[in-house]
Amino acid sequence: MEWQGLSLIGTGRGEPGGKSFTGWDPAAGVALEPRYHSAHPHEVERACKLAEEAAPAFAALPSRQRAVFLEHIAEALLAAEADFLAVTPRETGLPTARIQGELGRAAGQFRQFAKLLEEGSWVDARIDHAMPDRRPAPRPDLRSMLRALGPVAVFGASNFPLAFSTAGGDTASALAAGCPVIVKAHPAHPATSERAGEAIRAAVTACGLPEGVFSLLFDAGMDVGRALVKHPAIRAVGFTGSRAGGRALMDLAAARAAPIPVFAEMGSINPVFVLPEALATRPEAVADALATSILQGAGQFCTSPGLLVAAEGPGYESFRARLVERLGAVSAVPMLTPGIAERFRESVARLAARTDTRTWVRGEGREAHGAPALFEVVASAVLTDAALTDEVFGSCAVLVRTREPRDITRVASHLEGQLTATLMVEPGDHALASEMLPVLADRVGRVLVNGVPTGVEVCPSMVHGGPYPASADGRFTAVGTGALRRFVRPVCFQDVPEPLLPAELRDANPLDLWRTVDGVLARK
Amino acid sequence: MEWQGLSLIGTGRGEPGGKSFTGWDPAAGVALEPRYHSAHPHEVERACKLAEEAAPAFAALPSRQRAVFLEHIAEALLAAEADFLAVTPRETGLPTARIQGELGRAAGQFRQFAKLLEEGSWVDARIDHAMPDRRPAPRPDLRSMLRALGPVAVFGASNFPLAFSTAGGDTASALAAGCPVIVKAHPAHPATSERAGEAIRAAVTACGLPEGVFSLLFDAGMDVGRALVKHPAIRAVGFTGSRAGGRALMDLAAARAAPIPVFAEMGSINPVFVLPEALATRPEAVADALATSILQGAGQFCTSPGLLVAAEGPGYESFRARLVERLGAVSAVPMLTPGIAERFRESVARLAARTDTRTWVRGEGREAHGAPALFEVVASAVLTDAALTDEVFGSCAVLVRTREPRDITRVASHLEGQLTATLMVEPGDHALASEMLPVLADRVGRVLVNGVPTGVEVCPSMVHGGPYPASADGRFTAVGTGALRRFVRPVCFQDVPEPLLPAELRDANPLDLWRTVDGVLARK
Repeated sequence: MEWQGLSLIGTGRGEPGGKSFTGWDPAAGVALEPRYHSAHPHEVERACKLAEEAAPAFAALPSRQRAVFLEHIAEALLAAEADFLAVTPRETGLPTARIQGELGRAAGQFRQFAKLLEEGSWVDARIDHAMPDRRPAPRPDLRSMLRALGPVAVFGASNFPLAFSTAGGDTASALAAGCPVIVKAHPAHPATSERAGEAIRAAVTACGLPEGVFSLLFDAGMDVGRALVKHPAIRAVGFTGSRAGGRALMDLAAARAAPIPVFAEMGSINPVFVLPEALATRPEAVADALATSILQGAGQFCTSPGLLVAAEGPGYESFRARLVERLGAVSAVPMLTPGIAERFRESVARLAARTDTRTWVRGEGREAHGAPALFEVVASAVLTDAALTDEVFGSCAVLVRTREPRDITRVASHLEGQLTATLMVEPGDHALASEMLPVLADRVGRVLVNGVPTGVEVCPSMVHGGPYPASADGRFTAVGTGALRRFVRPVCFQDVPEPLLPAELRDANPLDLWRTVDGVLARK
Repeated sequence: MEWQGLSLIGTGRGEPGGKSFTGWDPAAGVALEPRYHSAHPHEVERACKLAEEAAPAFAALPSRQRAVFLEHIAEALLAAEADFLAVTPRETGLPTARIQGELGRAAGQFRQFAKLLEEGSWVDARIDHAMPDRRPAPRPDLRSMLRALGPVAVFGASNFPLAFSTAGGDTASALAAGCPVIVKAHPAHPATSERAGEAIRAAVTACGLPEGVFSLLFDAGMDVGRALVKHPAIRAVGFTGSRAGGRALMDLAAARAAPIPVFAEMGSINPVFVLPEALATRPEAVADALATSILQGAGQFCTSPGLLVAAEGPGYESFRARLVERLGAVSAVPMLTPGIAERFRESVARLAARTDTRTWVRGEGREAHGAPALFEVVASAVLTDAALTDEVFGSCAVLVRTREPRDITRVASHLEGQLTATLMVEPGDHALASEMLPVLADRVGRVLVNGVPTGVEVCPSMVHGGPYPASADGRFTAVGTGALRRFVRPVCFQDVPEPLLPAELRDANPLDLWRTVDGVLARK
C-alpha cells in the first residue's frame, strides 16, 4: 500500500495544509516518511456527520451481519501483515515477533466479537408477558434489549499500536455493539494507524455499509481529540493512556451540555504481594518471574508490576538480590517515543532523589532509551506518601519492605484503584491471602495468584479496568467480550405489536437466543 | 411510633441544634409536627465512616442472606402501614389509596430483589478454564463475578414518598447489590422518611448486620447532600428529581478527586404521537386515555405525558375538543409542596405568555394548588424553540399540530433524551410507526404503543431511564431488577485456588447458578 499521510473520512481522504508531523524511529533516532497532516475542523465535522447518519442503519443491522463485517476486518488486518511488519517495528521500536503476536491478537479480538454476535444472546433480551387479569391493574407486555449508543470516539494508545489502537479493542467492541467509530490516531505510529484504518475501511465497503461507520483522523496536537469529545454526535469515548490525559477527557465530557461516558484506561502500579511462605520457599523463582514481567516490552504495559511488597524474614534478602541481579543485567532499551523515555527517566530520577528510597538498580538512558530501575522503601513511607505509588510507565519497580506480615494488608488497604493485584503464595499463606482477597477485590479489577499481571487474556471473564484512577469507571472492562457493554443501553418496548418488534424480541425466538422470559432464563 | 425529628445514624440518632424545618400539609396549608433537625457535619462524617466499615462484610454476605434482609425490610414496611397512612397523606396531599398502593409497590420492590438474590445468577459468573497446553502461551484460569461498589448515597424524591424515597427503588437496588446506603431524606415528607428509615433499621438489627448498612439524614437545605456526594467513602449516587438538581450532583461528582457515577433520573416531557388512522378512528378514546394520564396524581410523575403530537386531518378537532373538555373540567388540586405548585404555575404562565401558543385550558391555582393546562402550537415552533419541550412538572400538556403526517417524524427526531415515547396507532399506521420506532429507540428508554406512559412496571424488562437529560446515564434503569446493575462492578480472579474463591465461582457450582463457562451459558 502507498501511505498518504491523510485522514480517512468515510470513503474519502482529508486534505493537507494543517499542522503536520511524522512518525519517529526510536531505535535509530530518525524521522520516518511520509508526513502526516492534522484533520481540519471541517473534516472533524464531516466525520461526525457521516457517523451520525450511519448510526441508525448500523445499529439496526442484524447481529449476524455485523459478525460478517467483523470477520472481514479480521481478514483484512491479517492480509496486511507484510505492511505492518514493514512500518510498525520502525515506528514503535517493538520487535517483529511482538508485532506479529499483536496482529494476531487484534484480529482475534474482532473474531471473538464476531462469535458473540453470531450467537446473539449478548442483547440480553427480556420478555415479560402481559397479565390482562392482574389486580388492581393489568400488566402490559414489556420487552427489552440492548441497543447501540451511537457514534464512539476512540483514542489510539501508544503502547499497543495494533491491539489497542486504530483496530484495537475499543474499536472492535464499539463496532460490535453497532456504534460507528471515529479514531483519533496516536501520533507515535501514524503509518500503522493508516494501514489499519484502510483495512477497516475496505471491510466497510466490502460489506456495503454506510461509509460513516468508520473514520480515522490524524492530529499533531490535541485539537482534533478535544473537538471529537465535545461534538454532540459523539455518544461515548474510549481512551487508553496517561492519567492526566484520561482525566482531561473525562472532565471535557462531563462539562458537555449532554455529558457522555468516557472509558479511560489509565493504568496503575499493579502491586504484587509476596507472602511469607512463598518468600521463604522460592524467593529466586518469584523474583525471576517478576523481573521478566517488569522487563517485558520495556515495562510499557498498563499492567506492568511496579510495586512489590514483602515482609522482612527468610527469603527477603535472596528475593531482593535476585531482582537486583536480573534488572541490573539489562542496559537501556528503546522505548516507544523520546517523550515516553524522557518522562520515564524523570520519574526514576525523582524516586532516586528521595531520602526515603534506596536505589538498587538505575541504568543510564538517553534520547528514546530507558534502563530498568529498582528502589526499596519501608512500608511506613508508602503509607504516608502517595507519590511512591504513582505509576512509572517503564521498567521500574519499588520494593516495599514491611516489618510484619500483617503490615502487608495495611499497605494493600492503603492503595488507590488498580487494574491488578497479585498474591504470591504457598499453602501456608492461605490464611493471610483469604484475609487480603476482599481488600484487594474492593480496589482492583483483577486479582492474580502466583502469576504475573502482564498478559491480558481476551475472554468473557477478563476484567481490564478497575476503580478510579486505574480506569474512569471500574464498572466496565476494556478487554474481553464484556467490553461491548460500555457502548450499549437497554430499550424497552411496551405493547409493541409483534410485526413491529425487533427479531430478538419476538415470541417465536427466530434467532434462538437465550432470553429472560417472565423472569426465567430460557432458550425458547 | 413516636417521631423524633432526628437523623438515623446507624443504630444511633442525630442531635438537635442544626437548622430545622417541618413537614407541610399542602391541602390544609398548615405546618406539621414534629420539627426536623438537619444533620451536623460530624454526623454526616459518622454515617459515612459507619457505611465504609460495614461495606466489606455486607458485600461479602451471601446473596441468600441479603435476600432474607430484604424480605425483613418488606415486612417491616407493610407492618408500618397504619403509621404511613397517619402521616404520608397529610405530608404529600396524596390520597390514602395512592399511599396504600405505593406502600405495596415499595415492599414489592424489596421482594423482587430478594427473589433475584435468592436465585443468585445476577452475579453474572463467568469461568474460563486454564488451557495449559495452548500455544504460544498457556491460558491461566480466569473467573469473574459482579461485586458491590461500596456505600451509596440516595436522595429521596418528592413525588414518590414511599416507592422512590427512603425505602424506594434506589435504596432497594443498592442494598440488593450489597452496598450500604445513606439516604438524604426529601424535606417534603420527613415523617414518612423517618418511619421508613426505622423499618429498614429494624431489619438491619434483626438480621445482625453491621449498623453502618443504613443511615438516614435530614437536611433543611443542601449542605448534607453536597457533603455526601463529595465524601470519599461514597461510591455512587442515586437521585430522582429536577434536571437542575440532578445536573448539579453530576457536576459535583465529576469534579471529585475520584469521580463517581450519579444516577439522576430527571424526568422528561414524554411525547405521545397520535398517528393518522388512530386519530381518525378513535379521537375521543385516545384523548380520554391521555387526559386521565395527564391528570393522574396532579401530573406529578416523571412519565406524565406533556407533549402530544398529531397531524391536521380527520379526528384532529374532536381529539383536541375532548382534551379541552376533560382537562378543563378539573379545578385546582393540591400539589406536593407550595414550591412545586409555584414552579408549575410559573411554567404555565410562561407558556401562556408566548405569542406562538394558543391557550385552550388554564385554570386558577394558588398556594399549594395547581390547575390543569393545555396549549397548542404548530410543529415549526417546536422545531425552532426547545423551551416548548421542557418538562412542566404537573398536569400540563402542549399539543403540537403538524401539517403532514410525515412531519410527526421530524418532531420526533428533533427531541432530546426522554424517559418514554408513545405511539397511538391503528393497523393502517404501522408503516409510519415502523419508520418512527428506530428514531424513538435512539432517544428514549421505553417506547409504548397504544398505552399511557404513567404506570412504570417493576419487572426485569423495565427501562426507566433514557438518554440525557431524561437521566444522567441512559445505559441504566432506575426501576426493575436491572436497577441493581448500577451499583456493581465485575472483579476477575486469575488462578485463585478453589478454597479461596467465592462460592459463586467454584467449579462444583454449589449455588446452582447460571454461569458462562468457557463461553457457554450453563447451569452446571
